[in-house]
Amino acid sequence: MTIVLNAEEMTDFLSEVFPQVEGMFSIDRLDEGALVMRLHASEQHLRPGGTVSGPAMFALADVGAYVITMSRIGRQALAVTTNCSIDFMRKPAAGADVLGEFRLLKLGRTLSVVDCLLFSEGQAAPVARASLTYSIPPVK
Amino acid sequence: MTIVLNAEEMTDFLSEVFPQVEGMFSIDRLDEGALVMRLHASEQHLRPGGTVSGPAMFALADVGAYVITMSRIGRQALAVTTNCSIDFMRKPAAGADVLGEFRLLKLGRTLSVVDCLLFSEGQAAPVARASLTYSIPPVK
Amino acid sequence: MTIVLNAEEMTDFLSEVFPQVEGMFSIDRLDEGALVMRLHASEQHLRPGGTVSGPAMFALADVGAYVITMSRIGRQALAVTTNCSIDFMRKPAAGADVLGEFRLLKLGRTLSVVDCLLFSEGQAAPVARASLTYSIPPVK
Amino acid sequence: MTIVLNAEEMTDFLSEVFPQVEGMFSIDRLDEGALVMRLHASEQHLRPGGTVSGPAMFALADVGAYVITMSRIGRQALAVTTNCSIDFMRKPAAGADVLGEFRLLKLGRTLSVVDCLLFSEGQAAPVARASLTYSIPPVK
Repeated sequence: MTIVLNAEEMTDFLSEVFPQVEGMFSIDRLDEGALVMRLHASEQHLRPGGTVSGPAMFALADVGAYVITMSRIGRQALAVTTNCSIDFMRKPAAGADVLGEFRLLKLGRTLSVVDCLLFSEGQAAPVARASLTYSIPPVK
Repeated sequence: MTIVLNAEEMTDFLSEVFPQVEGMFSIDRLDEGALVMRLHASEQHLRPGGTVSGPAMFALADVGAYVITMSRIGRQALAVTTNCSIDFMRKPAAGADVLGEFRLLKLGRTLSVVDCLLFSEGQAAPVARASLTYSIPPVK
Repeated sequence: MTIVLNAEEMTDFLSEVFPQVEGMFSIDRLDEGALVMRLHASEQHLRPGGTVSGPAMFALADVGAYVITMSRIGRQALAVTTNCSIDFMRKPAAGADVLGEFRLLKLGRTLSVVDCLLFSEGQAAPVARASLTYSIPPVK
Repeated sequence: MTIVLNAEEMTDFLSEVFPQVEGMFSIDRLDEGALVMRLHASEQHLRPGGTVSGPAMFALADVGAYVITMSRIGRQALAVTTNCSIDFMRKPAAGADVLGEFRLLKLGRTLSVVDCLLFSEGQAAPVARASLTYSIPPVK
């Protein structure tokens, strides 16, 4: 599927619609083959021991699913997550950013389905996996 | 099952182990019959329109599942979430706190299973539901 | 919400649209307050030890979510499951039927969300819990 | 990870432990790189229109997660599914077998985590995705 918003345009769009998370995420790669998003490890997302928290990993999965969907359909700020299932498999590495690799499994008229693997930067075994469904509002 | 940590003790324990979320959550009710936890609506958890974000609701589900498990087994900071499935069903009310009502469905030797319904305070229809599994480390 | 198909009408409808599972399920109770469905324990759904299999419990959750949705919107054979998350918590009792208690958490224009607890008949602790989303085709 | 049960040994093991599903599934490929399992389309798993049912797809996901786990740890019939999340994304092709491609994301001491994509044979877009957790009983 053709990309209609590239990494720079998506970054601007995210800043507009989610100003609260400004600086929390960035896009490492966005093209027809892949989306890789980065969660910047920072004090507020850490747990005792210096590892990234579960809610911060959920937030990365959620924003990445939004980004990969929007990158194909364009700016539709009202798309909403309807479901997420996430498995936490390993403790993230202390102090490391978390990278999410996303796949768009389905893009229908009303729903998109995305899955992702999350990794501590520099490590081969995933720390978490998630699948998400977004509901896409009908275009008027 | 007997409660081994009451609301006050749990609040102290949460402050110790999750200092980053200090002030984000509080316990409305914790006894053998129920756990009700509150997510305080505040600017950093809001989305455009003033509604509580998905990741903030996930965080409420996650902390409540931890609290209801710990309330029966005592202080075991190392218990970790292994799975969460969450359905977002309705838009939360603008500016309202979100309340989570939790049930402990299973407390085994190595796993606990919890489900919850989340409500915007003052509304009857749930905004989200979630189920979570915690892995409980063996006591040495 | 008003019931538009009662237990007898739903049973007839199920026989029409799912002839393959004839005899596998029955409705114990269907009214505005509750849906209870029964999975009849029979050889083909059993595992070694005489307990009901995971796929048979999934099938009960799936058909119950369909029934509770249809009971409110009427005959729409084309509604399809889009997501199910299921937790298997305890071994079912050998030889016992499994009963599912269902709640309709949301009935929107395009999606319904249902959750359920499954019990071995005569036992208090649930053997499984599940949540399901059905996509409801637009009425032409 | 090394394979300790090959396709032929696994097939024999499945026939022993799950005699009820004899003939329903077969292993197309099992080696260190991949597991591909086949659900044979047959009358009892079909829905009106000749498509494979949701419960049959769940059963394929479940048995494949069991097979990929056992292929690494050997015969442990008592491993049990604790969680499955499945998304049904497209209608399967009428009359076609369904193929499941499985990945072992984690093999810990007490849990394994597997995900899979399911395809109608001969089609490129997946009909479903699932993730599963198996609990592995401690070796005495």
